[in-house]
Amino acid sequence: MSRAAETIIPISPETVTTGPLPASDKIYVRGERFPDVAVPMREIRLSGGEPSVRVYDTSGLYTDPEQEIDITQGLPELRRDWILARGDVEAYEGRARKPEDDGLKPGERLTVPVFDRAGRMPLRGKDGANVTQLEYARRGIVTPEMEYIAIRENLGREALLRERAAKGIRPDGESFGASIQDFITPEFVRDEVARGRAIIPANINHTESEPMIIGRNFLVKINANIGNSAVTSSAAEEVDKMVWAIRWGTDTVMDLSTGRHIHTIREWIIRNSPVPIGTVPIYQALEKVGGVAEELTWDVYRDTLIEQCEQGVDYFTVHAGVRLAHIPLTVDRVTGIVSRGGSIMAKWCLAHHKESFLYTHFEDICEIMAQYDVSFSLGDGLRPGSIADANDASQFAELETLGELGRVADRYNVQVMIEGPGHVPMHKIKENMEKQLKECNEAPFYTLGPLTTDIAPGYDHITSGIGAAMIGWYGTAMLCYVTPKEHLGLPDRDDVKVGVVTYKIAAHAADLAKGHPAAQERDDALSKARFEFRWRDQFNLSLDPATAEQFHDQTLPAEGAKVAHFCSMCGPKFCSMRISQEVRDEARAQNNVTGLSTDEIKAGLAEKSKEFREQGSEIYKEV
Amino acid sequence: MSRAAETIIPISPETVTTGPLPASDKIYVRGERFPDVAVPMREIRLSGGEPSVRVYDTSGLYTDPEQEIDITQGLPELRRDWILARGDVEAYEGRARKPEDDGLKPGERLTVPVFDRAGRMPLRGKDGANVTQLEYARRGIVTPEMEYIAIRENLGREALLRERAAKGIRPDGESFGASIQDFITPEFVRDEVARGRAIIPANINHTESEPMIIGRNFLVKINANIGNSAVTSSAAEEVDKMVWAIRWGTDTVMDLSTGRHIHTIREWIIRNSPVPIGTVPIYQALEKVGGVAEELTWDVYRDTLIEQCEQGVDYFTVHAGVRLAHIPLTVDRVTGIVSRGGSIMAKWCLAHHKESFLYTHFEDICEIMAQYDVSFSLGDGLRPGSIADANDASQFAELETLGELGRVADRYNVQVMIEGPGHVPMHKIKENMEKQLKECNEAPFYTLGPLTTDIAPGYDHITSGIGAAMIGWYGTAMLCYVTPKEHLGLPDRDDVKVGVVTYKIAAHAADLAKGHPAAQERDDALSKARFEFRWRDQFNLSLDPATAEQFHDQTLPAEGAKVAHFCSMCGPKFCSMRISQEVRDEARAQNNVTGLSTDEIKAGLAEKSKEFREQGSEIYKEV
Repeated sequence: MSRAAETIIPISPETVTTGPLPASDKIYVRGERFPDVAVPMREIRLSGGEPSVRVYDTSGLYTDPEQEIDITQGLPELRRDWILARGDVEAYEGRARKPEDDGLKPGERLTVPVFDRAGRMPLRGKDGANVTQLEYARRGIVTPEMEYIAIRENLGREALLRERAAKGIRPDGESFGASIQDFITPEFVRDEVARGRAIIPANINHTESEPMIIGRNFLVKINANIGNSAVTSSAAEEVDKMVWAIRWGTDTVMDLSTGRHIHTIREWIIRNSPVPIGTVPIYQALEKVGGVAEELTWDVYRDTLIEQCEQGVDYFTVHAGVRLAHIPLTVDRVTGIVSRGGSIMAKWCLAHHKESFLYTHFEDICEIMAQYDVSFSLGDGLRPGSIADANDASQFAELETLGELGRVADRYNVQVMIEGPGHVPMHKIKENMEKQLKECNEAPFYTLGPLTTDIAPGYDHITSGIGAAMIGWYGTAMLCYVTPKEHLGLPDRDDVKVGVVTYKIAAHAADLAKGHPAAQERDDALSKARFEFRWRDQFNLSLDPATAEQFHDQTLPAEGAKVAHFCSMCGPKFCSMRISQEVRDEARAQNNVTGLSTDEIKAGLAEKSKEFREQGSEIYKEV
Repeated sequence: MSRAAETIIPISPETVTTGPLPASDKIYVRGERFPDVAVPMREIRLSGGEPSVRVYDTSGLYTDPEQEIDITQGLPELRRDWILARGDVEAYEGRARKPEDDGLKPGERLTVPVFDRAGRMPLRGKDGANVTQLEYARRGIVTPEMEYIAIRENLGREALLRERAAKGIRPDGESFGASIQDFITPEFVRDEVARGRAIIPANINHTESEPMIIGRNFLVKINANIGNSAVTSSAAEEVDKMVWAIRWGTDTVMDLSTGRHIHTIREWIIRNSPVPIGTVPIYQALEKVGGVAEELTWDVYRDTLIEQCEQGVDYFTVHAGVRLAHIPLTVDRVTGIVSRGGSIMAKWCLAHHKESFLYTHFEDICEIMAQYDVSFSLGDGLRPGSIADANDASQFAELETLGELGRVADRYNVQVMIEGPGHVPMHKIKENMEKQLKECNEAPFYTLGPLTTDIAPGYDHITSGIGAAMIGWYGTAMLCYVTPKEHLGLPDRDDVKVGVVTYKIAAHAADLAKGHPAAQERDDALSKARFEFRWRDQFNLSLDPATAEQFHDQTLPAEGAKVAHFCSMCGPKFCSMRISQEVRDEARAQNNVTGLSTDEIKAGLAEKSKEFREQGSEIYKEV
């Protein structure tokens, strides 16, 4: 399709959600090694003379009030100079766009606007050169991306560690053998990437992306899926879904669209996304062959990979682990094959009675991905879709194959993460993590949930949030969210938010339990605000300030209640925090003055007690 | 206050929620030993010739369409004959009601109606006799309550176990040393009660209650808190809160009211409650002394205990573990003392510089509770209110005291459970369970959450649901729910439902992980329905059928979509379950016919593959 035939419809910039979260400033921390590295963080201002709290910020320029957002222009090309400076890429004409890329029949026209690339051409490794972060890491090179990530992961660690060390406090935690660092250096980032224990999904054609890392020894990340399968939504709507998801904290976004206009909408998303974008290329390939799995070919798939490499997709889910011999193992399952990609490939394998082209052409795929630095997310096509099917022979047979394929990709210096289940009861979760670490040589694990029971459709963000927190603790590097609509329908805006917030909870609970040095800072700041009745600070420090405030205001809407020393839960008379503060003042007064032992304090308290009563002290003062 | 002075206002029966859940029949399973034992269960009817599924039913007569509900009459006195038949109780005049029982000042009148007891007098043990289920258990007596519980806990276990044994399937699970039975006998119930490892909260004055058990070797239970602290709600509203909470599955209800009319509203709740009711008597005692903690006395507290024993409260939270020496240990906490009862008692101890009367009169309390069979819930007044304070010295010092007090109660044959935290990061949860088992001689543990992070007010049902599922798996017998309004305000009807459903998820996930023999039946039935596109069955088997259906219908409202072989998530072309069924039919056909090994099947599949393609097979059939 020539450009002339395309309809370019202007999209208004107001269609995406912009502006900072409450009491939040966008700050940028500069690199030392690379001065043009400027890592965004969100700084939450507190009252009462408390120091502000810096939190990891995935939201991109959309929350920076200094920036003018225009999605028709896309985001600035943050990484372009870094990529070009390495001197190993070339711009080239690129693959010609075809009507079937958008699922159009010959003669059919697009009904969504095309993103205007303004003549920008795709990049690729010169003469087939490998341009992956893994390649650089193994050559001992620290890239700007790596310094960016080191700064991003550290947040306030340095100051906090100093402060705590002075008090003799060490962060505790149980990391199950992970190598949690006091402080992340760019060299540690490089080493972890070089060892294949972490990946930096960063297609050289997604120059707009803000570097991030996925690995067991870094903060636990989350992914949100967007995309539409039934009704074609507008490009601006899809961009806003992405912007909305990163606003609440998702670290990557997968575009799982399967409908028409798939190429065009993906372009809009990537050009406007500061987070890595993942896809499942087989979905688009299937559209290109009219939805008939048996008609899929390596050529169609290969062409789709290149199409998406050129657009800038950062990681591909590839279900190359679905082998012919595994399929009979699924026959007696309660829920068979529940992965879309897995079922498509199984169908293909059966129909052709051959190993899939994903498996047989795996090295070809590696060669392509190396030239663009697209990372593998080796798909678990045979993941269990019910408690009954958890940890069964087909699931683990596939996992072993994923380990084998991971070693192949590793030889090609292509970055790899491994996908995991699914539906798994709590007592079978740890085995998944242990087997994955063993079979896959500690490559990052990326799991969907897992859901710890099947009996709560409508609440599967919760059934899976439980499993996600646990497997995150055990070592999973990224958690794919599940929304309340899972199994039932497409998530709307509210569902996406609830899904992301639930998974931020799971990831943060995992960070705390693993003993990430600075993870507890936000908990402590919020709890201190709670104890001191700084209600606004409590709201602002929460993952969802507006909801916290709204819940509070349902019973106590007055502005005065924001400083009141109670809430509607217990009312003024029964507020334990209020009473407790009085108890503390009493006990501490004793303690500070005397510096005595507990027994001595007890003796001292007898005096104090008498005095306290003589003063006619009341527990409950008027508000 | 004489009866003549009371205002009796009729309440209409429509004020509570009645009627069965979708596709559900109320059935009653008869006792063998005690023919008048009739245990209610909910049987969910399925389509497609599938056998119906029986689930544990806490909802009482409110979901039995055969019953006429009239809350002014209260529920039938299910247990009265059993209690009288034991020949060890007497009816007596009872304590005279006083205006301060309802927080009224002299001359003030009630503005809520009084439940008409129609002359019924309270019961108590004759001549101070111990009438606890523990006393009977230790005498070797199997009570009707125990047979009731055995039947209730077993559900469909017998048939299921037979069916599974025939297939050689053993339920798996990791119970961390719990003694999970294939089949619960009345004798096992008795033995567990006798050992103090389980309690049956069953005040002889709560004759309306349907017996249930709380213990590590039984199904994990949940509790929902109701009650109002700020605005007085009507009696009917409070009854409906209880009915609403049991409808969604709560096993016990705590009435934490602290406002006026506390006695009268509690009476309405108990007379209409089929589940055990717990309270924190110190709340009412504090009301009686005008809210001044220092003014609390043993006499006021004792009088309140007897008042509530006579009404039929089934378990009392008693914060007797807050000892004077523990208070200095809370001084450096981030959130001090967050238990209402704990802070009140700490205040009292400091003001008087004495051990609290709860501690010094603990044996007197035991003597009272033994005469009515009220169980202890030994309160964790020093539970951590933030991640920073988890597992600290004051928390564990109190837990040791609770163990000591539990041994005292045990000598009096009074049933005991132990309350636990609170806010605890994942890696510190197990230590709580292990220490509780050790210090408290395996008495049932009853925990609030725990919340695994502090940073998500508005979502604390989720932060705590994660911890609840884990600690339930490790061995906690009952999980106290947390609603989305925790820390922010009073839960409304929707919050109560979300809280209960979240905790049913946590409890069920724990049952699955512990390996309760029949727990997986509902998961399997639901997953099978899902795989076979029996949408209505999937909704009906879920914890919240209406929400599941509503979510589905948001995108596919047509009745025809209820049998469609896809949903709006993936649409018809990408439905993995649909494709998977075709894959399975294909593979199974091969497998069944031949009974061959995997390699042989593979060879056979080559043939089949050819044939399949020759028939021009399509993956996607028209719907």
